[in-house]
Amino acid sequence: MKIDLNSDLGESFGRYHLGNDTQVIQLVTSVNVACGFHAGDPDVMAQTVAVAEKAGVKIGAHPGFPDLQGFGRRQMKLTPAEVKHLVTYQIGALQAFTSDHRLHHVKPHGALYNLAANDYQLAVAICQGIQQVDPELPLYGLAGSELIKAAKAVGLPAAQEVFGDRNYLPDGRLVPRSQPNAVITDPAVIAARVLQMLQTHTVTAIDGSQVELQPDTVCVHGDNQQALAIVARLRETLVQAEVKLQSF
Amino acid sequence: MKIDLNSDLGESFGRYHLGNDTQVIQLVTSVNVACGFHAGDPDVMAQTVAVAEKAGVKIGAHPGFPDLQGFGRRQMKLTPAEVKHLVTYQIGALQAFTSDHRLHHVKPHGALYNLAANDYQLAVAICQGIQQVDPELPLYGLAGSELIKAAKAVGLPAAQEVFGDRNYLPDGRLVPRSQPNAVITDPAVIAARVLQMLQTHTVTAIDGSQVELQPDTVCVHGDNQQALAIVARLRETLVQAEVKLQSF
Amino acid sequence: MKIDLNSDLGESFGRYHLGNDTQVIQLVTSVNVACGFHAGDPDVMAQTVAVAEKAGVKIGAHPGFPDLQGFGRRQMKLTPAEVKHLVTYQIGALQAFTSDHRLHHVKPHGALYNLAANDYQLAVAICQGIQQVDPELPLYGLAGSELIKAAKAVGLPAAQEVFGDRNYLPDGRLVPRSQPNAVITDPAVIAARVLQMLQTHTVTAIDGSQVELQPDTVCVHGDNQQALAIVARLRETLVQAEVKLQSF
Amino acid sequence: MKIDLNSDLGESFGRYHLGNDTQVIQLVTSVNVACGFHAGDPDVMAQTVAVAEKAGVKIGAHPGFPDLQGFGRRQMKLTPAEVKHLVTYQIGALQAFTSDHRLHHVKPHGALYNLAANDYQLAVAICQGIQQVDPELPLYGLAGSELIKAAKAVGLPAAQEVFGDRNYLPDGRLVPRSQPNAVITDPAVIAARVLQMLQTHTVTAIDGSQVELQPDTVCVHGDNQQALAIVARLRETLVQAEVKLQSF
Repeated sequence: MKIDLNSDLGESFGRYHLGNDTQVIQLVTSVNVACGFHAGDPDVMAQTVAVAEKAGVKIGAHPGFPDLQGFGRRQMKLTPAEVKHLVTYQIGALQAFTSDHRLHHVKPHGALYNLAANDYQLAVAICQGIQQVDPELPLYGLAGSELIKAAKAVGLPAAQEVFGDRNYLPDGRLVPRSQPNAVITDPAVIAARVLQMLQTHTVTAIDGSQVELQPDTVCVHGDNQQALAIVARLRETLVQAEVKLQSF
Repeated sequence: MKIDLNSDLGESFGRYHLGNDTQVIQLVTSVNVACGFHAGDPDVMAQTVAVAEKAGVKIGAHPGFPDLQGFGRRQMKLTPAEVKHLVTYQIGALQAFTSDHRLHHVKPHGALYNLAANDYQLAVAICQGIQQVDPELPLYGLAGSELIKAAKAVGLPAAQEVFGDRNYLPDGRLVPRSQPNAVITDPAVIAARVLQMLQTHTVTAIDGSQVELQPDTVCVHGDNQQALAIVARLRETLVQAEVKLQSF
Repeated sequence: MKIDLNSDLGESFGRYHLGNDTQVIQLVTSVNVACGFHAGDPDVMAQTVAVAEKAGVKIGAHPGFPDLQGFGRRQMKLTPAEVKHLVTYQIGALQAFTSDHRLHHVKPHGALYNLAANDYQLAVAICQGIQQVDPELPLYGLAGSELIKAAKAVGLPAAQEVFGDRNYLPDGRLVPRSQPNAVITDPAVIAARVLQMLQTHTVTAIDGSQVELQPDTVCVHGDNQQALAIVARLRETLVQAEVKLQSF
Repeated sequence: MKIDLNSDLGESFGRYHLGNDTQVIQLVTSVNVACGFHAGDPDVMAQTVAVAEKAGVKIGAHPGFPDLQGFGRRQMKLTPAEVKHLVTYQIGALQAFTSDHRLHHVKPHGALYNLAANDYQLAVAICQGIQQVDPELPLYGLAGSELIKAAKAVGLPAAQEVFGDRNYLPDGRLVPRSQPNAVITDPAVIAARVLQMLQTHTVTAIDGSQVELQPDTVCVHGDNQQALAIVARLRETLVQAEVKLQSF
């Protein structure tokens, strides 16, 4: 068994510092780097790519809505063409900072990710925005969602992403953060849930039912010391279970 | 004899339309496309690249300061590192929209161009920002300026740009727009000045002295019908003098 | 009978020019001035207020979503608190440019207007944002919509706005622009529809049914010569019918 | 003897948190609130004004250049008219959030403050931008600088600002941060320097000479625990010397 651990990185902006990039980068196998629309700026991107390349983790683009104030977490109703173009733009911008001008993957951010997980047309637009840059560049998307379906339909490689710290609805979608019990905080529970996903290809939904999923990558966070402790515990659990940690 | 005619393109933004892109593109051999910082947006860039590729003109990036309100024409005091990174970012973003993911050149815009023409350190930063993306990607810069010197010093190809519609100072710099007689408007005079540059490698400065320069490309404009008439007249004059119009 | 004619103004930005402000201002009794979020900038606002004050028309704020690229026409999902604050901010900014530091009204722009017309909670947030600045400052909102209901509920004066150039649904909402027949272009038809609204307090919906409404102000446009011709024809029709044109 | 202690506040933006507003507000008599151009957003401004009003400190506007990435610390070459308008805009926006729609003062931020301290024309533009909103609204400016001269010339009240933690040049200007010894970090030295300014109306410049100044307000910082300790020590020293701490 093997799994990729991915985390969002490079979310600082100008004088504003966010995240513990240098710590979390030691714990993951791939990173999603903000591209200047919802977070990040050209200086932060240059720095983040340098740090990630030195650490040897795989670098992906993390394109989001053009909404710095909302951190890309506020829904914006854009046309598929607008979404396609902003994805292409942000991937291109980030790719230019890498040593070999190649990225490992693309993971949409925040509201763009969540909307496209349930909107096939939007998901196709994201895939097309990626294909414009590189038809072999994998998409990271919510396991079983429209993002994965769209990628398969247009012939784009896709990694199915799962969340150890989020509760699932019976249909495989995440419990929205606006609802109670959306987030799981106990490191032991989180680690056990991810292990279950890997061993049984299922997750226990909030109503107790079993949801099938095919985990390729697990999203982890480095916002604070608690988040870092969760990742450390998860790594420990996975290594003990002889799960190989490697990028998709 | 041969010369490149270049023009700025893709300067619309959202609902705001600017320029006569489809007309001017017929009259030039290369275009400089705005990259979203001083003008342009991802949708405009996608559309502009498509139009330029169809017309068969060479496409260059036209990176500028992050100042949409000032159209990149207001000086900003940025560090060399900041300049390097914003150049890399904008080139990467534009490049992603092209069919073969290659650009023909990079021409800094507005205040960034003008400041770097006189500031060697800033000019080197621009060159380094280009080299990060492609060490063979030519810089368009003011003939004889620090931009050309920096490109040569760091080993970047450079095209020396001349202006038929601008008066020159005796030291080869342009008369600032804030001064009288900065701009020449007579199409016949403009055409004659460019022809002189090509035939004698000199231009008559505002004090009557002769300035030496090596013209590789001429900057032309398509803002309005008068500007388009100037380009048409210039083309006619050059063709009659058996100057070949081709990209650098 | 009397009616207010209002039009959006000051929608230029930096180097980008939009609209025929100096022409349309002669034809209306009140104007809605963009406040820098979806259009306009501090220079444009200063200039627009000066022009409007000289023309003697009433000046209102026209706050919109923070989305210059989308011209405030793309839906953004903001919290009521975020909406309240961006309304207060934009009103305050515009008000500061007026001679007597007082505005005549506030009309939300684009997607903010349309969303709030159908969302009571959002409409209340807009009203609260206005009340923070001035509890007597009237809101312009779609006749019969949630905007009007919210204003009445919180005790804010409100002007009911009607559209001569838009078709109505049987429930009093506008036919969305994405649907056919959303917009009416015949000047004679537009003038006749507005006159009917004033004389009968009804409008004929797209299915032929009669919708009741109480028109206080009519929205007109000055985007191009055709739009200006429509306003001129409307004025002529109203004057002939002895309708007094005056601000709310 | 009396003195005002002022500090910058409300410099967070969206998801980005900056400063220790709730702590520093207990230690000062007036605050300068960011207005959304270099820092702050409408939500942060609403929150900051509420906190400041509750604490009973005087609220001033802190307008800056439109450069969020550079935190308003990068010089931008704007025309006096552009500066005037962006000052008016930002003051108006902030003022709208206050309970009585009145501000106590205006202090330009960062590069705008520093440029105007040495540029009379720019200083006049700032004063005119303030006067547009309120001809009685005091300007906070560097003691003895062009800002103070401009305010006096145009009839605007002005508070002369001094810095306990910065070294001075013999001509009364601050040693630029780019030079060594620009900043003083010893709390005891800082407190002693401010006391000297209050008691003797002089400060010892970096070359040992005495510079005359008339201190009305002292700028203090709350960025981190060290900064807060400096303010606490300064307060203690001033209280012991029977200097009354009160707003200008």
